Amino acid sequence: MTTVRISMQLSDATWPQISALETNLAVIPVGSTEQHGPHAPLGTDALAAEAVAKAGVEAYTNQTGLEVPIAPVIPVGIAEEHRAFDGTLWVSPDTFRAYVRETAESLAHHGFDRLVFVNGHGGNVTALRELSGEISRHSEAYAVAFTWFDSVDSEIPMGHGGPRETAVIRHIRPELIDESEAETAGQHASDHWGEWVAGVNLAYDSAAFSQNGVVGDPREGSAKDGEQLVAAAADGLCMLLEAVAERDHEA
Amino acid sequence: MTTVRISMQLSDATWPQISALETNLAVIPVGSTEQHGPHAPLGTDALAAEAVAKAGVEAYTNQTGLEVPIAPVIPVGIAEEHRAFDGTLWVSPDTFRAYVRETAESLAHHGFDRLVFVNGHGGNVTALRELSGEISRHSEAYAVAFTWFDSVDSEIPMGHGGPRETAVIRHIRPELIDESEAETAGQHASDHWGEWVAGVNLAYDSAAFSQNGVVGDPREGSAKDGEQLVAAAADGLCMLLEAVAERDHEA
Amino acid sequence: MTTVRISMQLSDATWPQISALETNLAVIPVGSTEQHGPHAPLGTDALAAEAVAKAGVEAYTNQTGLEVPIAPVIPVGIAEEHRAFDGTLWVSPDTFRAYVRETAESLAHHGFDRLVFVNGHGGNVTALRELSGEISRHSEAYAVAFTWFDSVDSEIPMGHGGPRETAVIRHIRPELIDESEAETAGQHASDHWGEWVAGVNLAYDSAAFSQNGVVGDPREGSAKDGEQLVAAAADGLCMLLEAVAERDHEA
Amino acid sequence: MTTVRISMQLSDATWPQISALETNLAVIPVGSTEQHGPHAPLGTDALAAEAVAKAGVEAYTNQTGLEVPIAPVIPVGIAEEHRAFDGTLWVSPDTFRAYVRETAESLAHHGFDRLVFVNGHGGNVTALRELSGEISRHSEAYAVAFTWFDSVDSEIPMGHGGPRETAVIRHIRPELIDESEAETAGQHASDHWGEWVAGVNLAYDSAAFSQNGVVGDPREGSAKDGEQLVAAAADGLCMLLEAVAERDHEA
Amino acid sequence: MTTVRISMQLSDATWPQISALETNLAVIPVGSTEQHGPHAPLGTDALAAEAVAKAGVEAYTNQTGLEVPIAPVIPVGIAEEHRAFDGTLWVSPDTFRAYVRETAESLAHHGFDRLVFVNGHGGNVTALRELSGEISRHSEAYAVAFTWFDSVDSEIPMGHGGPRETAVIRHIRPELIDESEAETAGQHASDHWGEWVAGVNLAYDSAAFSQNGVVGDPREGSAKDGEQLVAAAADGLCMLLEAVAERDHEA
Amino acid sequence: MTTVRISMQLSDATWPQISALETNLAVIPVGSTEQHGPHAPLGTDALAAEAVAKAGVEAYTNQTGLEVPIAPVIPVGIAEEHRAFDGTLWVSPDTFRAYVRETAESLAHHGFDRLVFVNGHGGNVTALRELSGEISRHSEAYAVAFTWFDSVDSEIPMGHGGPRETAVIRHIRPELIDESEAETAGQHASDHWGEWVAGVNLAYDSAAFSQNGVVGDPREGSAKDGEQLVAAAADGLCMLLEAVAERDHEA
Repeated sequence: MTTVRISMQLSDATWPQISALETNLAVIPVGSTEQHGPHAPLGTDALAAEAVAKAGVEAYTNQTGLEVPIAPVIPVGIAEEHRAFDGTLWVSPDTFRAYVRETAESLAHHGFDRLVFVNGHGGNVTALRELSGEISRHSEAYAVAFTWFDSVDSEIPMGHGGPRETAVIRHIRPELIDESEAETAGQHASDHWGEWVAGVNLAYDSAAFSQNGVVGDPREGSAKDGEQLVAAAADGLCMLLEAVAERDHEA
Repeated sequence: MTTVRISMQLSDATWPQISALETNLAVIPVGSTEQHGPHAPLGTDALAAEAVAKAGVEAYTNQTGLEVPIAPVIPVGIAEEHRAFDGTLWVSPDTFRAYVRETAESLAHHGFDRLVFVNGHGGNVTALRELSGEISRHSEAYAVAFTWFDSVDSEIPMGHGGPRETAVIRHIRPELIDESEAETAGQHASDHWGEWVAGVNLAYDSAAFSQNGVVGDPREGSAKDGEQLVAAAADGLCMLLEAVAERDHEA
Repeated sequence: MTTVRISMQLSDATWPQISALETNLAVIPVGSTEQHGPHAPLGTDALAAEAVAKAGVEAYTNQTGLEVPIAPVIPVGIAEEHRAFDGTLWVSPDTFRAYVRETAESLAHHGFDRLVFVNGHGGNVTALRELSGEISRHSEAYAVAFTWFDSVDSEIPMGHGGPRETAVIRHIRPELIDESEAETAGQHASDHWGEWVAGVNLAYDSAAFSQNGVVGDPREGSAKDGEQLVAAAADGLCMLLEAVAERDHEA
Repeated sequence: MTTVRISMQLSDATWPQISALETNLAVIPVGSTEQHGPHAPLGTDALAAEAVAKAGVEAYTNQTGLEVPIAPVIPVGIAEEHRAFDGTLWVSPDTFRAYVRETAESLAHHGFDRLVFVNGHGGNVTALRELSGEISRHSEAYAVAFTWFDSVDSEIPMGHGGPRETAVIRHIRPELIDESEAETAGQHASDHWGEWVAGVNLAYDSAAFSQNGVVGDPREGSAKDGEQLVAAAADGLCMLLEAVAERDHEA
Repeated sequence: MTTVRISMQLSDATWPQISALETNLAVIPVGSTEQHGPHAPLGTDALAAEAVAKAGVEAYTNQTGLEVPIAPVIPVGIAEEHRAFDGTLWVSPDTFRAYVRETAESLAHHGFDRLVFVNGHGGNVTALRELSGEISRHSEAYAVAFTWFDSVDSEIPMGHGGPRETAVIRHIRPELIDESEAETAGQHASDHWGEWVAGVNLAYDSAAFSQNGVVGDPREGSAKDGEQLVAAAADGLCMLLEAVAERDHEA
Repeated sequence: MTTVRISMQLSDATWPQISALETNLAVIPVGSTEQHGPHAPLGTDALAAEAVAKAGVEAYTNQTGLEVPIAPVIPVGIAEEHRAFDGTLWVSPDTFRAYVRETAESLAHHGFDRLVFVNGHGGNVTALRELSGEISRHSEAYAVAFTWFDSVDSEIPMGHGGPRETAVIRHIRPELIDESEAETAGQHASDHWGEWVAGVNLAYDSAAFSQNGVVGDPREGSAKDGEQLVAAAADGLCMLLEAVAERDHEA
């Protein structure tokens, strides 16, 4: 007898297990592999997206009894802004949009035509909105993009590799924070994202305004903060899944 | 004092750790998320690619003392041929080539301009060869594509979701094989890939020649076989890394 | 003897007049042709962008003595969200990005390689940011995108066809406001843009949340408010031109 | 009570005014921003296209009682051939075709599926023919491209910035002709377009055969000639609108 | 001992024979495979282009002593206008431009960077001009497009499958003219290409104005006329090759 | 009275002759123009593809009484690997796929929706498979790609410009083999294609492993061998045509 799984990692399932699902929802985590300062891992955005996706889907399954498949996280996003820092990976916005959209459409082919992207990277936000609109207007499916750190109402500042993201990694994968670097990471962090004149950011690369790639002081976000942030994001995602499942939609 | 890691998962590292590396090699695992029969997980190809990449890089590091970064696995490939089976994800060949190529070029931007793709899916083979040629002829980098199951000389048959792949998953993630399905998976498996006339495969979709998506009998590949297959592939990859590091190349 | 022109409409000039300029700045107004409710013209965004561009460039010329060419306004943008309302024109985001970027690069060919887009439409914002980044990172030019209504600090609410935009048209082209419709436009206006759950807008088309296409009450923005808004935006644009002229940049 | 407008500038109208129209015709002026010699404005082609569009639509409305919407002029076309002269703007042919075609298709979305481009630039002619064919064969709409100077039978020579175009600008916007330059413009004008051998033009840039960008003597076209040219073109356009309205078409 | 060849079919030569050439000229015939009425073969345009290319290159070789390579004819062009008639082949304009341009650039790679297209199809003319401009402005090579029937000054009317083309095929491949059909072909031929109003062709498909695909009476062009036409076109091509070889060019 | 043709060259036929055919099969030969050593012509692949197509279609017609149209050979393929040898022509894989696919789809437009590519070049194999899959899955047509040298079971080795290809040209166009070079061609030929490590070919260009472009000894393939090879390939193609005509297919 198989134990009931309350979160369904698509990659771990067989095709008959996927066929047996009774939902048309699917969740696609989207990350980025990019510098997060001298203390946090390049995979921060993907790890956070996966953790929130899993927690949010569990909440939804607990509430509705319905299992929802979670696609493997898309690991490389729109991150050329961090090109000055080694190890940052990126693709062009056009290629990102195509890769994510087509992945989503292959899920829709199997009947999972209510799609929620769970995003962990600021640089992906507008591209995900754009491609979700294309899917929703010009295919049979309906898609929306949820960005975990935009969904929560929290006093922990965001920044980049800052309190909010560092807190989450301290909660979910503490061994990946190089705490020996966190002190100096905070001391040399920038306190702002971008260089602004008249509502316009003059900078395109993060190296223009942050010497070590960090914005915000990572010392200000604890593992406990991270736990609360993931829980809050999971609540938001659960609400969103309900709304997406029920929404009237025609292309 | 930091412990020496003998395998370098790029996603787990910070950017200064990547900056400190003394190699221009990098490894990019490439998978697929697609049906592997009623007994094996949709993520089989990605899991195998990651396992071989890790083992091969460890062998190389042991031999040379040089750490080589391993990018996060690219999870969705060219797999429309399995569209009849639920949960299979795919992108078009054009989008796959762009996504993989641009990811590789972002590594080359940081000086990792000797690139080895470690591939776990037959449907990706020719696309990876094509894009590796484009990189090698038309950029400053040099790239080659290694497909683990084509690198080994073994009596364990390949198929699809067959003995060779099932053996590897039984070795690296045994809990993901649904052994309760393996028996019937083997009974209903096809014994051939494709429908051939005069050297031409008339079929485009695997459903045309396999009722359950399986080719080859998965009962014929044990965890021990899987261990040997991964070891053999790792040896091949290690040799390849040496050859790539030393090769004269100009675009 | 030629009178000194303090604003330089590129379309009205001859090529030797353009050759004689002593700046490397150029301004490109970007609009949209799309519904702005039953009371305001489809060309609202283009008209506002042109007016702000002219006023901002005049301020800059007054301050520095340098004339700056203003390209003709780009009339069609990213506006499919208003497709439910007749007369709305749009192109795809990809085509918009290509058209605007190549127009800008043709200016850079002549040495005008410090480019400021003056935008009047919310739907264009992220696409202009994306293409400005592409120009700035991958060509010899440097470009930024200024959106007039995001540059001003004002108590007049934005909305769509709402107080802020209607005020500006009342100031610059009052005959184009159908005042006989303004009353009911305000009565049936929506008071919010989008339908939000957990930080995600579930709606893609404005018709989903506004019956007549209007968001915000157009009765709340007078011609005098419009005058102040244009003046404030012009001040911001003038400051931005100075900053762009002086900024260190390398691709 | 609203006065009846006999020409309908789409940009000046509200969406309900466009909804009230009883035609499926629409007119899209297409210009270019490019050198027209030392005497004529860079915007010559756009200005002429707009003037002819307006006059032709008025004639059609007078004749039929039907108002026809006129889209805003597309300001940048295929003009790289004039790149040697400052201020010339251009986009690639591919981008021009996409931008114009998608603009037209957005009009067709609202039911204006009989489309007439009114073009003022020789470099756009074949691209407009190509995209009109694509629309007509592969969408529900029908489109044709009218080039004003090819529609008239006149003894005033064409050239470039020559008698025909200068005459029209002298008629519609006389203040934009720098008459102080017209004398020398004519003296240094080329008397031919291109460098021909065996029916082939060897030149790609106008600078190869015209020192100041002019072909033909602009002194030979008066404002009165311009008036007659616009009237003749308007007559042609009116006839064309009737023919397009009545034509049987299926994709 | 090898006989001197005075025409150099690239396909028939070995690579060392091509290496030994002392010219930077190359000729690329471009045809189309499309209906030419009930009497003339679908390959008419390719056959004529090849014949003129060969004769023109022979004339040039006789005059200068230099052999010039002739690429294989490109067989499929822009011919969707004839889609109503069976056997007509076509590709989209974008694909045609890419295929021809890249073929030419591969010749330029070997040092044949003065390129002359010898074209036999009206539908290819503007696309060849466009791509030749792209090559000449944006690569190291220089290219022009010669269309045989536009190069000759002759009283034999052109049409389509009409006197001029039929004459040439009667000269070069008489067995391919179905003379039993020529009589009725002429009787049912159209006497005009297109349906014109105000300088605009309302028709996109040849079937709209020709019942059998023919324009002009094929009975009016004899084999002797064809011989003279080919000779005249060859003279023009020879002159063009001289001009192209000598022309100053920089991108 | 017309003689019955048992092979139908599309280019030689008129459109009514094509209309009269009673098959939905069509054959499209695909070649390449590329170095084949100092002894064999650049057009080897196209010539072989045409010869096999003709022989195979004749066999099919003899057997079934049905004539099948043969399109003109596509002359330029994916051959950048031979760029080091003069005269080699190539296009990018993307352009090749588009050109071949669209040509095929124009045949399908006329009802020839069972398409067989007859290929003569190894570098085209995977691209033809990819585009055939796209046609078969996403259009109304069904297409397969047959590569003559992969279809035959023969002891004559393949190589490149080696025994198998040289034998075929000695049979079909003996005058194009430069026999005076065949001796040294064989002496300096490589005995392997590529440079292999762990199942990976490290070389992208043939010049990396063959000094004169030849792989395999061309002296080992006689005209008689060539005759047998063409006959064997024709038999295979005939069987394939039967299978394709009868196959159930839905996109």
